[in-house]
Amino acid sequence: MHQLIDDIFCEAFADLQLNAKHDSAIVNAGSPRLAFTTDSYVVDPIFFPGGDIGSLAVYGTVNDLAMSGARPLCLSAGFILEEGFPISDLRAIARSMRAAADISSVSIVTGDTKVVDRGKGHGVFINTSGIGVLKSDLVISPERIAPGDAIIVNGDIGRHGIAVMAQREGFTFETRIESDCAPLAGSVASLIETGVEIHCLRDLTRGGLATALVELAAASGRCIQIEEVSIPVHDAVKGACEILGYDPLYVACEGRFVAIVRSEDADVTLEVLRGISPQLTPQIIGYVTDEYTGVVTMTSGLGVDRFIDMLTGEQLPRIC
Amino acid sequence: MHQLIDDIFCEAFADLQLNAKHDSAIVNAGSPRLAFTTDSYVVDPIFFPGGDIGSLAVYGTVNDLAMSGARPLCLSAGFILEEGFPISDLRAIARSMRAAADISSVSIVTGDTKVVDRGKGHGVFINTSGIGVLKSDLVISPERIAPGDAIIVNGDIGRHGIAVMAQREGFTFETRIESDCAPLAGSVASLIETGVEIHCLRDLTRGGLATALVELAAASGRCIQIEEVSIPVHDAVKGACEILGYDPLYVACEGRFVAIVRSEDADVTLEVLRGISPQLTPQIIGYVTDEYTGVVTMTSGLGVDRFIDMLTGEQLPRIC
Repeated sequence: MHQLIDDIFCEAFADLQLNAKHDSAIVNAGSPRLAFTTDSYVVDPIFFPGGDIGSLAVYGTVNDLAMSGARPLCLSAGFILEEGFPISDLRAIARSMRAAADISSVSIVTGDTKVVDRGKGHGVFINTSGIGVLKSDLVISPERIAPGDAIIVNGDIGRHGIAVMAQREGFTFETRIESDCAPLAGSVASLIETGVEIHCLRDLTRGGLATALVELAAASGRCIQIEEVSIPVHDAVKGACEILGYDPLYVACEGRFVAIVRSEDADVTLEVLRGISPQLTPQIIGYVTDEYTGVVTMTSGLGVDRFIDMLTGEQLPRIC
Repeated sequence: MHQLIDDIFCEAFADLQLNAKHDSAIVNAGSPRLAFTTDSYVVDPIFFPGGDIGSLAVYGTVNDLAMSGARPLCLSAGFILEEGFPISDLRAIARSMRAAADISSVSIVTGDTKVVDRGKGHGVFINTSGIGVLKSDLVISPERIAPGDAIIVNGDIGRHGIAVMAQREGFTFETRIESDCAPLAGSVASLIETGVEIHCLRDLTRGGLATALVELAAASGRCIQIEEVSIPVHDAVKGACEILGYDPLYVACEGRFVAIVRSEDADVTLEVLRGISPQLTPQIIGYVTDEYTGVVTMTSGLGVDRFIDMLTGEQLPRIC
């Protein structure tokens, strides 16, 4: 996917915005500055514990806007329906989108529907694009990541990927694992209001925590050093990963992000995040250094350091 | 489709914006006002005479913005690829999008790609969403349509639908019919600059001229009266429609629109449109009256008046 994006899209659309490889583009259409982002959702199955393709499509795009520091303002919704898709499911999805939009304080203001022949789609695919407003003049971008910065995750990782995969494959675990699918704009707004100097934000979607950090290390040229024991993982997710042979570091979340902040702001960041959702166990998981250039290292529970790679291949396809 | 939109989406997303049933939503994020729109493209085949899914995805969304009077600013692009889709085709599509964006003076600033299993998609689907800037304080909306207004089409209708259908079914005609796929924002900007008091604009996509006019008559509560002999249709399109049993009134275009303007402005509107593309034969095709409420009537070549209905069923599926 990274190669595809570099090779085809960045070549064809060569543009400062796309080359920044951030979750949203910043658009100067006057005042205030705007953030603009798009995502298509092809999750299979479309209903899963803790959410569905509709809530995912709203939260996912709201979160991409939030990761640029923007207050999400409005969304578009484009549906591609496979002929024969049950109207009752479509109604349930539309209602779920509305509920998720209300929770996220955004409006779905424009939409489109296309129908394709049976066997030429898969139930429903949804694209949501979103516009957000950048109120603060904070620049939240990989280039601001600096040695000494603290790396904070807002909660335990991997629930979304495991919940979707278990539903798809028909596995059941002793503890039911629900998706972590949730809007993040409120948390980001609270951090900005508290005066935290956020250097960068990234939500932990496709490829999980490891992939997000590898991307940020590469984009910033910095070394990101994390501690395995500090990374919050729910026992049920740990257990499921052990049974299924997955590494939680690479499992997608849909309601988790890393905040990279000035080290002086680490404690207040933790305090704010714990205030919002203490049960998610936000943690400082590491620091930025200049020991290497553009890589991620992790100290294991046994004290051994190793380099962390990007996810290669698809550990869990169609989880978003 | 109309019932689906009314029943499911307008119910779930009940909102002033969606209820206006216009091509774009108007967003107040500060100054200037913005237009925001989305469309998914599932055209089959993806390459056709006069265009491809990429140029269509750019022009289609640019045109939706233009129809609200906005100057298109930037687009997002979301791709859903079926596993095994040729990279060479994707590259050709990306380049075609870039060329179309350059011609339309917009930038593609953000994007997303998802891959689905073979047999769960169909080659490539593209969603483009767009942001436009409303410079003038002109309100371009069905509610402004008033008795006496002139109805002007910017060119001959039906080429896009016939070009796509002929390519899909493997028909060849004596005269090769190319899609009319083209950006309309320049024409709209020229009309606004010339000081034409535009009451409403609508591009003639799914369902063609007839469906667009029926929607506008219903939304405005006015009677739209058109003359069959005034409607420009290329001879090759006429011939193809005769052979295939299609009514050109219902065949989709992707570079045609109707402008509904004050009757005093009809001549200058024609002049501007003819100045831009004389070979397209822009025409006044009728007037708004208050003879009936919310319907379209057409006077045939023989002088017989009849009511024009919305397209029911799919005359030509997947032409956009």
